[in-house]
Order: sequence, then structure tokens, then C-alpha cells
Amino acid sequence: MQPIQVLREASRLVHQNVKNLAGTKAAGADHGVGAGGDISRKIDIVAEKTVLDYLKKIKFDCVVLGEECGRVELSKKPKGFVIMDAIDGSANAVRGLPFFCCSLAFATENKLSSITAGVVTDLSSGDMYWATKGGGAYCNKKKIQVHREKPVYKIVGVNVSGAKPQLVKRIQPLFENSNHTRHLGANALELAIFARGMMDVYIDLREKIRVTDMAAGYLIAKEAGGIILDQKMKPLDSDLAYETRLSFIAASSDEILKEISKQLKM
Amino acid sequence: MQPIQVLREASRLVHQNVKNLAGTKAAGADHGVGAGGDISRKIDIVAEKTVLDYLKKIKFDCVVLGEECGRVELSKKPKGFVIMDAIDGSANAVRGLPFFCCSLAFATENKLSSITAGVVTDLSSGDMYWATKGGGAYCNKKKIQVHREKPVYKIVGVNVSGAKPQLVKRIQPLFENSNHTRHLGANALELAIFARGMMDVYIDLREKIRVTDMAAGYLIAKEAGGIILDQKMKPLDSDLAYETRLSFIAASSDEILKEISKQLKM
Repeated sequence: MQPIQVLREASRLVHQNVKNLAGTKAAGADHGVGAGGDISRKIDIVAEKTVLDYLKKIKFDCVVLGEECGRVELSKKPKGFVIMDAIDGSANAVRGLPFFCCSLAFATENKLSSITAGVVTDLSSGDMYWATKGGGAYCNKKKIQVHREKPVYKIVGVNVSGAKPQLVKRIQPLFENSNHTRHLGANALELAIFARGMMDVYIDLREKIRVTDMAAGYLIAKEAGGIILDQKMKPLDSDLAYETRLSFIAASSDEILKEISKQLKM
Repeated sequence: MQPIQVLREASRLVHQNVKNLAGTKAAGADHGVGAGGDISRKIDIVAEKTVLDYLKKIKFDCVVLGEECGRVELSKKPKGFVIMDAIDGSANAVRGLPFFCCSLAFATENKLSSITAGVVTDLSSGDMYWATKGGGAYCNKKKIQVHREKPVYKIVGVNVSGAKPQLVKRIQPLFENSNHTRHLGANALELAIFARGMMDVYIDLREKIRVTDMAAGYLIAKEAGGIILDQKMKPLDSDLAYETRLSFIAASSDEILKEISKQLKM
């Protein structure tokens, strides 16, 4: 079984197991602090357990790096890493706001650039975004790509939650110059809809994003033709440690990248 | 036929007529500048025509105030005003980003506070939010209310699209003090999900929101127990002229209102 098939099936099971839990009081029950440093909620735990149980059941030789569970070695001869944020956008999921997802990626080495498969499932609609390295990006059965043409409405996604005054000051020109900024609250799904052509640029410069929030969306956005750079305007890469924090800019074309980076004085 | 029944049926017809149009190339076709000053897109026109045709068919005695069509007198003896933003969140609708709605309200006089019925239909999920003055607020058949308890995750909605530097500076403390700010891009639907308890506060201080974007959401949020104030911290009210521009803060409790207004130095 290929890694992409494993991730897709695990992701489908998560959708099945949490779709009636989101927005309920039970979803938000406190399960202590997870490996990533945030409080784990019941919905996070149910979703992670779904993935771990499935990987064990099919005896998939891997090391899991999870938002809540941390590093779990499922094999002494791992083929690679499964990078898991079983619920990305937990706040939305707990409140019932229908924008959250399951993010799963597979990497052969301890590097973002060695990711070979990624799956992001919208846990409200059930839409499954997936990509394999060199194989293109898909939403369900349909090939997707970033929006290349000049859009009727330009949509600029920017994550500002918890941003320091200095950063807000820096990104202020984005607000001033765009009539359609967005902040939806689930990083992996924002990268997936960017890949599908629904947003023209998506930016997070807070140095807060974990590799687990980023891994699958990174491959899907790249395979859909997106440009993904770090805060120094170099191609984004990093190790897979869950202490690592990232900043990035994802752009659908050189033209919009130029426009946005000028506004941000990058 | 009561105004609320008329609005609900018109809203249902809009959902039926546009659900396969959103996100297509045709949806964004340019139909010239509408009464509100923005370019009307095909999806806006189809939705408005659906409402107008229905109101004419049932001979509903009213004056329509529409985002695209402007003032349309359907009767010489009107019972009141139908305030219509047939597609709120047009940019999302055209791009296929699944957060846009149809907003319809009925007012007996030329004032926001004289609105007696409001309907906001989520045109992606089909969820219909509605309220009558004094009759409470509903999502489909279920009574809804704002989130009164201390939330597991506090969600702060804030509209910053096109915001001037001075305003961004003023709302910066909201970003710094909240790990979950949101900007979803359809004002009426944001008020509706606030009413449903998915957000704790929703703020727009840009002095840009039109009465057509606000009317139905205003009643739904109020009937769900929300506090809706203007920028002077007075209960929000205005005439229904489509030249009028509003700023507001919607809060689910006195406690969060106090916290947010302190951050905004209101």
C-alpha cells in the first residue's frame, strides 16, 4: 500500500469519526497539554487515535509526529515519517465554525522538502485535497491548480491571530490595499483552498506555525503550482521537529508575489 | 402571507438558483455598476432577479431596497421595505470560497430598528437563519442564541478589509490579545454565525457597511441575545438609505463587550 493510500484512508476514517462531534459540548473537553504545547481537546484526541489505530492495524512501518501525541515509533524499521495534525483549526471545530480539517503527510527524511504525500480533508464538507510529489494536486478526483489568471476579486489570506504590534504594523498595507483579506482559522485548509484557486496569496509571518500544521498543505500547494517562500524569500524548508516554528508566504504567481512582497517590504 | 414567510421562500429560491453557479467562471461576469457603487456580477444579478420576480409574482406590496437594483417600488400602497443583499460575500461566491449568503429583511418604517423580519441563508450549506421581532432567532427549525458561557476558545471576528492605517493601529490590541481572530468575508453570515454562538464578538469599524449588508443579520443577532452597538457605544440604529455607512460592535455578553471596548479604547 502506497503512503498516499494510507493517508487517504486514515483521513477518511477521521472524517467519519468526528463529523458529528464538531460544535458539541463534548468536543471541547480538556485532555491536558499535548506535545505541541496547546491543550488537547476531546475532538483532537478522537481524531489522533483514529489515525494511530489505523496505522497500527495495517502495520505501517513509520514514525508518527503528532500535534498532541508527539513522536510515536510504530516500527523499528520505519519507511519514513507520518506528520499529523489530526484536527487543524481546533478552535473552529470546537465552536462548530465549519472550517477545520485533518492534515496528514508522509516524508522519507526529516525535512519538509522530503514530503512525498499529503492529504488535507475538510471535515465539514468532506472534500479531500491530496498530492504526491511530482504527481500533481487533487480535490477528490479533480486535478487542481492555483489561480493564475488575473482574478475578478483578489483574495489575500493573512494570519494575524496573536500577532505582535510590530508585525501588525508591517502587514497593515495588505489590509489597506485589499478589499478582500481573509483569516479563516485552519492553516492546512487555507493552503488547500489556496491550491484550489480560491485565494491568491496566503501569508503567515508570526513565526508560530508548526510543521504539523504545514506539512500536507505545503505539498498540495506546491503541486498545484504555488510558490512557497520563507520570510527571507527563499524556498521554504525546515526539519520536522515539532519545536520548529515557521513563517511563510504562498503566492499563486510571480506577479502577485512581487506586489505583496513590496507591500511587506520583504 | 407574513413577511417572514415571504422572505424565507424568496431566500430558498435564491439558494436553488445560485448553488451551482458559485465558483464558476460565469458567476463573475461583469454586469456594470450597481446602485451600491460596486460592480454587479452575474451571480448578484441572478440572485436579485430571483427575489424581485418572486415578490412580483405574489404581489407583495413593498418597496425594495437592493444592493444592485437600488430602490424599486413594487406597490403604490407598500406595507414596508424589503432590504436585500441577494448575495452578501460576492467575492467569496465568485471565487467559490464557501462562505456567502442571501440577506433579506423587512422593515415597517425607514429605520433599522423597525425591522420586523430577517432571513440569512448560507448559500453553501443551505442553513437558513431567521428571526422575527420579539419572536426569537432560529437556524432552520432550531432556536439559537449567542454564546453566553465562557468559551473554550474565544473567537473574535473583525473586518479589516481595506482598513486605513489609523484603524489597523486601533484594532491591533485585538490581534495581540486573541489567538483566534477571524475574517470570513460575508457580513450578514458573520452576524448569523455570531447569533448561533460560533463567535463571541464581531466588529466592523471601517464605516463602510451598508444597511443592505446589515439589516437581516442585525435582527437575527439581536433576537439571539446579542448586544449591537455603534462606534459611540449606543444601540445601533440608522435610516435605510443605501448611501448610509455603518460601524458596529456585536458582543455576546456585557463581559466580552467590556473587555473588547477597553482594548479598542471606546
